[in-house]
Amino acid sequence: MQLKKKVIICEVGMRDGLQNEKANLTTNQKLKLIDEIADAGFKVIEVGSFVSPKAVPQMADTDELFKRIKKREGIEYRALIANKKGIERAIECGCKKVKLNVSASRAHNLANLNSTPEDTVSKFKEIVKLAKENNIEISGSISMPFGSPWERKIPIEDIKLIVEAYLSCGINQISLSDASGMAVPNQVYNICKEMKETYPEVNWVLHFHNTRGLGISNILAAMQAGMDCFDTSLGGLGGCPFVPGAAGNVVSEDLIHMLDEMDIETGIDIDRVIESARNLQELVGHNIDSFLLKAGKSSALIKELPKGQGKNEIVNK
Amino acid sequence: MQLKKKVIICEVGMRDGLQNEKANLTTNQKLKLIDEIADAGFKVIEVGSFVSPKAVPQMADTDELFKRIKKREGIEYRALIANKKGIERAIECGCKKVKLNVSASRAHNLANLNSTPEDTVSKFKEIVKLAKENNIEISGSISMPFGSPWERKIPIEDIKLIVEAYLSCGINQISLSDASGMAVPNQVYNICKEMKETYPEVNWVLHFHNTRGLGISNILAAMQAGMDCFDTSLGGLGGCPFVPGAAGNVVSEDLIHMLDEMDIETGIDIDRVIESARNLQELVGHNIDSFLLKAGKSSALIKELPKGQGKNEIVNK
Repeated sequence: MQLKKKVIICEVGMRDGLQNEKANLTTNQKLKLIDEIADAGFKVIEVGSFVSPKAVPQMADTDELFKRIKKREGIEYRALIANKKGIERAIECGCKKVKLNVSASRAHNLANLNSTPEDTVSKFKEIVKLAKENNIEISGSISMPFGSPWERKIPIEDIKLIVEAYLSCGINQISLSDASGMAVPNQVYNICKEMKETYPEVNWVLHFHNTRGLGISNILAAMQAGMDCFDTSLGGLGGCPFVPGAAGNVVSEDLIHMLDEMDIETGIDIDRVIESARNLQELVGHNIDSFLLKAGKSSALIKELPKGQGKNEIVNK
Repeated sequence: MQLKKKVIICEVGMRDGLQNEKANLTTNQKLKLIDEIADAGFKVIEVGSFVSPKAVPQMADTDELFKRIKKREGIEYRALIANKKGIERAIECGCKKVKLNVSASRAHNLANLNSTPEDTVSKFKEIVKLAKENNIEISGSISMPFGSPWERKIPIEDIKLIVEAYLSCGINQISLSDASGMAVPNQVYNICKEMKETYPEVNWVLHFHNTRGLGISNILAAMQAGMDCFDTSLGGLGGCPFVPGAAGNVVSEDLIHMLDEMDIETGIDIDRVIESARNLQELVGHNIDSFLLKAGKSSALIKELPKGQGKNEIVNK
């Protein structure tokens, strides 16, 4: 099983997680969590999104967050944007990394924007120009490349058209986002392998949802295809935009614990992540989908022997 | 990603699931579920265990179940046993397949039985003889080969000693059981690969718990090492014997749905499995760990277009 020895985990709970929550955290609560996430060792934190506060009230304080975060060197604090207005807000509040998004579902994109996905992306040129003029890094994401609730399968040629549109705009960090939670491991492996081989110039990010319990399996498949950058959220906060009540993002602490046990480096302190997930659980006011919070680390050994005629000396030999 | 095109799924919810439940189902309720499981297409069903009804009251009606099941050709109805008494009960009630168990944790086995795991197995000879004389098939399982809460790592040589003890008793179907939920995919791959290569005469079964959310990832790793027979339970019923409140077995419907989507044959009807899991959820009286029950199949397409200026004709093209 060929796997990279080091992966990058991007914490997206503050954005993709909280935007699905009824509880609207205060800016101070968010700032404390963002600090905890940085303390734990995450090098990429998705802080919020510059979208309409009417559409997504939970993200209304994204500008204020960027103004107030105690930014640390070496950490990327990024925000999602939808249009040029997003760059203007990023400039104003000092955000240095933004992410655009388009749907790989032609049905979805045509219905929403009356434009094909690749046409939508090519209109991003002006946005990319403005970002670069202001030293703002910009990346792009592609929603539903692994399946759409409208068309089911997305032809790989359609994904390639979008990748090429992003590249021609000057964007070479591209995220493949299984927001519909339809990806399965052999498909993920095949698509990732083809994408990596066809576009070696792209820095890929994979964003899986745990909608049908396959988030970590899909990450492993992507790793086997050579991918090494993944979005997750504390406690798996989030949801599936098309399935009310379904599970959210891949659980940060579950993934990091597994990688630790597999001797794959993340640079992240699992104990601090567990602590933050516990704090977050309290803030959102309901149980979260974390397996680790229920089971604890597997390195937590049981000191007492099982009942019986035990010979204590052989324990922990 | 090299994977078998066909796998066998053994439904263990009636035993490993229900023995962890407070609710004690009636014999009639169990019989109905066992029928549903057979209707769905499972070819192996773990019905119960012939152990002390005082120790495990939920399994007290195992003998009665075996007498009353409408047995179907081609389906294996198996029970767990602990000793010779188990074979005597199997003979009496017409059970044709039993499974023995030993712990790969020397600490655990020594404390419980004052004997090393391989010595424990070699004492099974008499049990195997009695089973075979009565045309009862017999298999063996090894608990915690992927890690123990007492010693943490189990040396692979220790697992081999147990496998060899089983083989010398005449048992060649052997299950590796991660009851402690400590297995991780690269470890599973390596151990499975070594076991398959060293003992080509063994029919392997893998039994993973979803304690830390890695059940399906571990199954995929085992499949990549050539394994093709796995225990799961409806709704992931069950638990971790060492972590109160932790998740149980791998969820049957989640695994079968994934395999369907990966074009890997199970011979099982996912819709019937989902229906049975729903019935079981009602019988045990609490939510179960199934992702599929919350999210539904990913093939359930959304008919309406997302709101926007949609062009209906391109949907479902």
